[in-house]
Amino acid sequence: MYRTHTCGELSLANINKQVTLAGWIQTVRKFGSITFVDLRDRYGITQLLFGEELNKQLDETALGREFVLQVKGIVSERTNKNPNLSTGDIEIKVSSFSVLNKSVTPPFTIQDDTDGGDDLRMKFRYLDLRRNAVKKNMELRYAVNRAARNYLHENNFMDIETPFLIKSTPEGARDFVVPSRMNSGQFYALPQSPQTFKQLLMVSGYDRYYQVVKCFRDEDLRADRQPEFTQIDCEMSFVEQEDILKMFEGMIRHIFLSVKNINYTDKIDVMTWEDAMWNYGNDKPDIRFGMKIANLKTAFKKDGIQARGELINDAGFAVFDNAETVVAIAVPGAAAYSRKQLDELTDWVKRPQIGMQGLVNIRYNIDGTYKSSVDKFYNEEKLKQIAAFCHANPGDLILILAGKEEKTRKAMSELRLELGEKLGFRKNNEFKLLWVVDFPLFEYSEEDNRWVARHHPFTSPKPAHIEVMINNDPVIHNAAEYLKHPYADIKANAYDMVLNGNEIGGGSIRIFQRDLQEKMFTALGMSQEEALHKFGFLLGAFEYGAPPHGGIAFGFDRLCAILGGSESIRDFIAFPKNNSGRDVMLDAPSTIDDKQLKELSISIDKKSPATN
Amino acid sequence: MYRTHTCGELSLANINKQVTLAGWIQTVRKFGSITFVDLRDRYGITQLLFGEELNKQLDETALGREFVLQVKGIVSERTNKNPNLSTGDIEIKVSSFSVLNKSVTPPFTIQDDTDGGDDLRMKFRYLDLRRNAVKKNMELRYAVNRAARNYLHENNFMDIETPFLIKSTPEGARDFVVPSRMNSGQFYALPQSPQTFKQLLMVSGYDRYYQVVKCFRDEDLRADRQPEFTQIDCEMSFVEQEDILKMFEGMIRHIFLSVKNINYTDKIDVMTWEDAMWNYGNDKPDIRFGMKIANLKTAFKKDGIQARGELINDAGFAVFDNAETVVAIAVPGAAAYSRKQLDELTDWVKRPQIGMQGLVNIRYNIDGTYKSSVDKFYNEEKLKQIAAFCHANPGDLILILAGKEEKTRKAMSELRLELGEKLGFRKNNEFKLLWVVDFPLFEYSEEDNRWVARHHPFTSPKPAHIEVMINNDPVIHNAAEYLKHPYADIKANAYDMVLNGNEIGGGSIRIFQRDLQEKMFTALGMSQEEALHKFGFLLGAFEYGAPPHGGIAFGFDRLCAILGGSESIRDFIAFPKNNSGRDVMLDAPSTIDDKQLKELSISIDKKSPATN
Repeated sequence: MYRTHTCGELSLANINKQVTLAGWIQTVRKFGSITFVDLRDRYGITQLLFGEELNKQLDETALGREFVLQVKGIVSERTNKNPNLSTGDIEIKVSSFSVLNKSVTPPFTIQDDTDGGDDLRMKFRYLDLRRNAVKKNMELRYAVNRAARNYLHENNFMDIETPFLIKSTPEGARDFVVPSRMNSGQFYALPQSPQTFKQLLMVSGYDRYYQVVKCFRDEDLRADRQPEFTQIDCEMSFVEQEDILKMFEGMIRHIFLSVKNINYTDKIDVMTWEDAMWNYGNDKPDIRFGMKIANLKTAFKKDGIQARGELINDAGFAVFDNAETVVAIAVPGAAAYSRKQLDELTDWVKRPQIGMQGLVNIRYNIDGTYKSSVDKFYNEEKLKQIAAFCHANPGDLILILAGKEEKTRKAMSELRLELGEKLGFRKNNEFKLLWVVDFPLFEYSEEDNRWVARHHPFTSPKPAHIEVMINNDPVIHNAAEYLKHPYADIKANAYDMVLNGNEIGGGSIRIFQRDLQEKMFTALGMSQEEALHKFGFLLGAFEYGAPPHGGIAFGFDRLCAILGGSESIRDFIAFPKNNSGRDVMLDAPSTIDDKQLKELSISIDKKSPATN
Repeated sequence: MYRTHTCGELSLANINKQVTLAGWIQTVRKFGSITFVDLRDRYGITQLLFGEELNKQLDETALGREFVLQVKGIVSERTNKNPNLSTGDIEIKVSSFSVLNKSVTPPFTIQDDTDGGDDLRMKFRYLDLRRNAVKKNMELRYAVNRAARNYLHENNFMDIETPFLIKSTPEGARDFVVPSRMNSGQFYALPQSPQTFKQLLMVSGYDRYYQVVKCFRDEDLRADRQPEFTQIDCEMSFVEQEDILKMFEGMIRHIFLSVKNINYTDKIDVMTWEDAMWNYGNDKPDIRFGMKIANLKTAFKKDGIQARGELINDAGFAVFDNAETVVAIAVPGAAAYSRKQLDELTDWVKRPQIGMQGLVNIRYNIDGTYKSSVDKFYNEEKLKQIAAFCHANPGDLILILAGKEEKTRKAMSELRLELGEKLGFRKNNEFKLLWVVDFPLFEYSEEDNRWVARHHPFTSPKPAHIEVMINNDPVIHNAAEYLKHPYADIKANAYDMVLNGNEIGGGSIRIFQRDLQEKMFTALGMSQEEALHKFGFLLGAFEYGAPPHGGIAFGFDRLCAILGGSESIRDFIAFPKNNSGRDVMLDAPSTIDDKQLKELSISIDKKSPATN
């Protein structure tokens, strides 16, 4: 061993002890005839004191930033204590030292606030990982991993490894594929998730399964997506939805307690998908703050609360009168926004990413008066009614968007989040959990005029809706009226866990009967032959006594990022890829040898894929 | 929840309790008007008693093997207790039941001794996994995983995930590659191990890393190899060989204690590679039994103990006189082997897999007399000397092989293991650990007339041999005399952990200086350009203060198999592949859509790879 102690453990309790330390040189400071060095390792920083007697050797052996140094010496009390360091009471009076390895000057400083840009940090990721800020993220990730495993173990879950070289069954996302040398012309696929395997394990009777496992999706990478990502993947037998919610509420509470020392005792609300869309315009609402959407006029939500069309209709304001949907939010204390601020918000909703035509405002002044951009259509009494409907208080600013249902709702959701951010309502260190349930089982694909699975093809309908699915033909005869098809109303036995406006986990109760699973494949436009080719093993397994089962998968990278108070998952992955799916440190992907291609019996098409 | 209890937990303590159970029907037995059902789940088996009052319902609802059944009833004391079952004191008096799912007749019986052949069991692996024998293996695997993680966690190791989509740098084994859609004509590779990443993590200062991680090698599969396999992968900084041996002895002892309840307190011997080859003909000796090889005449082992050529030379027996190597073993108590048994052994060594010309024997009879197949060349006095040199006792059979060094030594090693097996010396429930150290750093490749790395290119020479490596040109000018090249004597700072004759782990102290690493790449015939293309990131990292470091990787599948008393790793993998690399359950690999190929810009070569 090159050391007797780490750089993070010595204190006054070790005074006069002879020790050996090894680590990296953080700083070198020369004061006259003595030299101070801060020596760093994973555990901390310890100050070294080189006395006059070592000057000759120091002159011969230059010490530089990031050199790897081994020193022997005596632990001594510091005159100038540093209360910010765990080792700040002591220093090592060095008796001898040796440089274990040198370092050229790093391309950026190894400090919390580094001068390295993103590209440079990724190219030299091994140096970036030395920075305390990144190290803290890796430690948090490990702590979450460990906490999840411990909780699941305590609850009788078993880690069972599922294969990585599987069969390509593209549904929705693209598979990464792996040419097989031994089976020429054939390919493995890398798993998008262990979904079918964990279901087979339930058929096998394993009851409670988990895995912290890499998954792969060959998608065009939006910001903050990675081609390989990690899931905490779980499945249980003999359970209903409530059992799963309870089990995994327990897991997330355990993670909060053991990783963040937060005793999250609040009840975790269960919100239907319809309520989430109605009140937040979004299926993963950030409930750290209010500003719920008021539905002044809308086509959405057939049952339950109705929109108050009479509040705004027939006032002669064509924008509202002709709109499919009119939605509003009350922004606390923003009635005093300047003209300029309002113009900025209008510009913001007009950006192509949001794409609205304009933004109507009503100032509900602190003195109780109203002032609106649509004064000439709505008198004070009307404005008052609208404000009341929006639950606005004096001093609030009411913002209104109008247009097509889906787009307008989405735009209002974005505006709400933007304002929540601006007003400081979205605090990194505040955490609010939520379940969203009762998603639609199907979504309509205009392109193919058929149903697609909203979650995945293995999700069960709500028990009450199974008959609807079995007894109706999935074919959509009238595309314009697809909403009237019985399948449009089928709800899934599915659930998402939402944390601070992010979906951190999602799952469902699964189909476990062959006939229902076959009906599902048919509903998704799969021929019987195709279903057998792709999923014959699963359909077969369902014939041998498949138990009722369900599960959930947590997005581990995202969970870590949110717990770490960050929006970027890349900061929580040791060796991430960039937005083109490249590892710039390795310079991968890259070309391979002709010999390799030949062995795999494949050729590269010369024409560019863009022209295909 | 579909149950209040599992099928493994009820006992007399629960008498008269109302319970709900769910599980699979193991057996149905009808006795007159009552019916007994054994209900099985992951946790055990519970007997159900269906009384007369349920007969009508039972007649309407046939119960069959592997049906999924839910029952409500009262826990009652059994009259006929079964001491072999944890639940054997009780049964459930069923009040109501429902069939949750049916089962067709399974293709083989779900029992310890199944009637299913290997192919059938693999095709229906989800049923095979239901068998208690296989379930026990999966549970053992999880227990080993958990024990290793706990030990490493307690010792400050951190689980850090390394990427799966990396760069192809084939060295020795073939990479599996993954075509990149977004970077047309380029490929990722799947990692053969996280070797370079764990070294980078040491450069990053993470100090103690571990991962239980899938690795991939595209090799022609010998029996009991898998294209994807799992390693317990570890790396440490600021350590020397002794530190690593100590740390991982601790891990294996912890695994023995917590998984097998075996307190393995024996000292774990450290044997040099030369001694292993000399005494066992093998670099992973099974030391559960003796029968060490006696080197009667050999060219091997320049230093240390010398062979006694004088024992057998110049007796006029050309087979021995002309042989490069003559080796013997004394087989305890086998002097009484019949002519037929000896002939069988001779046939065994003549098989093409062993390939020897013949087998010489000396019976050292229980009465002290000698009888040998080479009596006419060696008188009793000579035979006595040979027997003494072999440490033979009266009643032993001495077996002698002669021929070319490497082949003969290997053959004797095989013969020793075969006889050890036959004589019952290789007990599944006895465990003997061993370290083998001081391997040669290089092996000679006759094909390329150059050096290849015995372990891998990142292994450091022994400290005393670094100068030899740096100061000598690796080029072999005289192929016939490669053994005289200074590189032939360089020993690696490497170590293998051997359990019952299997290498369960291997590792090394790594090179951590750029110049030595470059010299290594040169020695392996890599041009500077190629080295930079493949490993530029690592050479770069070594310039920024790389610490001394080393590590080890355990073959997790094999370790589990040996602890489970099996020779087959497939029995310890939930979803293994067959010897052609196929998953017969999924039917993977398989063809993929033309659309997928087109998106990846690759084509399949029509000509068979065999003709290339």
